[in-house]
Amino acid sequence: MENAGGANGNQWGFKANEELKTASGITVRGVLNSLLENLNKNDTRPLIPLGHGDPSAFPSFRTASVAVDAIVHSVRSARFNCYSSTVGILPARRAIADYLNRDLPYKLSPDDVYLTLGCTQAIEVILTVLARPGANILLPRPGFPYYEARATHSHLEVRHFDLLPAKGWEVDLDAVEALADENTVALVIINPGNPCGNVYTYQHLQKIAETAKKLGIMVIADEVYDHLAFGNTPFVPMGVFGSIVPVLTLGSISKRWIVPGWRLGWLVTSDPNGILQDSGVAFFHSISPNMRMGDYLVLSESVYTTVVSLQQ
Amino acid sequence: MENAGGANGNQWGFKANEELKTASGITVRGVLNSLLENLNKNDTRPLIPLGHGDPSAFPSFRTASVAVDAIVHSVRSARFNCYSSTVGILPARRAIADYLNRDLPYKLSPDDVYLTLGCTQAIEVILTVLARPGANILLPRPGFPYYEARATHSHLEVRHFDLLPAKGWEVDLDAVEALADENTVALVIINPGNPCGNVYTYQHLQKIAETAKKLGIMVIADEVYDHLAFGNTPFVPMGVFGSIVPVLTLGSISKRWIVPGWRLGWLVTSDPNGILQDSGVAFFHSISPNMRMGDYLVLSESVYTTVVSLQQ
Repeated sequence: MENAGGANGNQWGFKANEELKTASGITVRGVLNSLLENLNKNDTRPLIPLGHGDPSAFPSFRTASVAVDAIVHSVRSARFNCYSSTVGILPARRAIADYLNRDLPYKLSPDDVYLTLGCTQAIEVILTVLARPGANILLPRPGFPYYEARATHSHLEVRHFDLLPAKGWEVDLDAVEALADENTVALVIINPGNPCGNVYTYQHLQKIAETAKKLGIMVIADEVYDHLAFGNTPFVPMGVFGSIVPVLTLGSISKRWIVPGWRLGWLVTSDPNGILQDSGVAFFHSISPNMRMGDYLVLSESVYTTVVSLQQ
Repeated sequence: MENAGGANGNQWGFKANEELKTASGITVRGVLNSLLENLNKNDTRPLIPLGHGDPSAFPSFRTASVAVDAIVHSVRSARFNCYSSTVGILPARRAIADYLNRDLPYKLSPDDVYLTLGCTQAIEVILTVLARPGANILLPRPGFPYYEARATHSHLEVRHFDLLPAKGWEVDLDAVEALADENTVALVIINPGNPCGNVYTYQHLQKIAETAKKLGIMVIADEVYDHLAFGNTPFVPMGVFGSIVPVLTLGSISKRWIVPGWRLGWLVTSDPNGILQDSGVAFFHSISPNMRMGDYLVLSESVYTTVVSLQQ
């Protein structure tokens, strides 16, 4: 017990896992925190937070009263103070399936839908599930750095493909083919794009699906900005091509409803051929005791109400 | 690309990380899910869910209207729809510090407090931070299996010490001393006890603190049932002994306010000598971009209101 010198008041046997610092250093928040910690406190010039991606912080952006009323109704009902099922309550999952089905050529079932704490937890869950030893994942550059942070956290190797500015930030599919090998598990796209705001055409999404099928990898489609599309190209969900390649669709109500603090997101298997089920990837049910997805019940009925009201 | 046969419609390069199944198999939910999946569906006898630990599911148990009103007020104010700081908003952290300070011989500051998604996320964060390669942790037997699940998930070795039924489920401190070595980082106690409902005396807690100090390890005190104490022994928080040994205190409003679905918990460094800060373990601020603690702002002001009202 030489090293366990608590008794002398100086030595203690614990220290932190240093790996975590590496992973958090590559998030937007990690970088921002580092910058803020290193400011010259004697410099009185005002700061403009260019890393700010949250309109709800400004009084001119407000969510709809129907959404607020839905939460108030849920809380007052006293029906949603208990633990949720680990995947989210059925009415909420059904509402999300119905919402997404408006844009799909096949029908999602509520069992394809898993409630998550914002899109963030959906990313955590997926990368955790895919991180078997030796696996790698293809991420867009530029992209959303939380993918890199969570992949590093799970020891999932990251390989970057470029988005092509001259082609409206389309995926460099030649680069994707060159990067992939037998240990590649997935390709991530963010559409509408973060940070570039581009919207992919139907044709480009179809090419992505065909490339992924050729490579034997799934597509993770981060659609957290779904119908918040700038420009003339209409938003097309990647799930439209779910019969070509299995798609995991990530979304939330944060952006469209201007309520990121409500942390209401989803992870959806857009996979009408059931390939994910066969591969064991769609076993979120069985891992969920670990991940605690959907364990957020008091607001789940609100998702139901708010998301369904989108359709009216 | 021999193995990436997506093109032939049969082979895909992804499969799930099998480790997760192992970890989730040892949670209460994992075991319950397995049992439920293996029921004989032709057997019509009613099921009694003995694994049910959630009074809020029954109409006779209701939270106070002051708590419900606090949430309604927060939601209607539109001030809490945005992303939170990663450690939780200051008024909520201050309210929790004030609440805990009632029972402590020193003063916690709001900077000692981190908001978490229930006590569950506090467990996740702590075990992730402590899981440096080779480390081990001492857990009580019987205990709360989520510790085992998360430790396994983070590759943190688990060593069990017995609780002694003949001594009111006190910690077998001789066993603790025999189990600990130079790679032991912490000892977990759950007080009031889960699942046994015992409440430790001041004297026993002091002995735990002294043993931990001797071994050079911290104490993780799961006090999610804090003042919900059965019997004649008054509840004493482990943080009372924070000047003997660094203590991480875990708590939530779930049990006392009968609102587990609200997911409002905390992780507190009860460490007036600042030992955790020196060891790098109290760097939750820097890892929090990864862990997304406290990212739950819409209800944070409600914590403030409800927890402060406890003091009146």
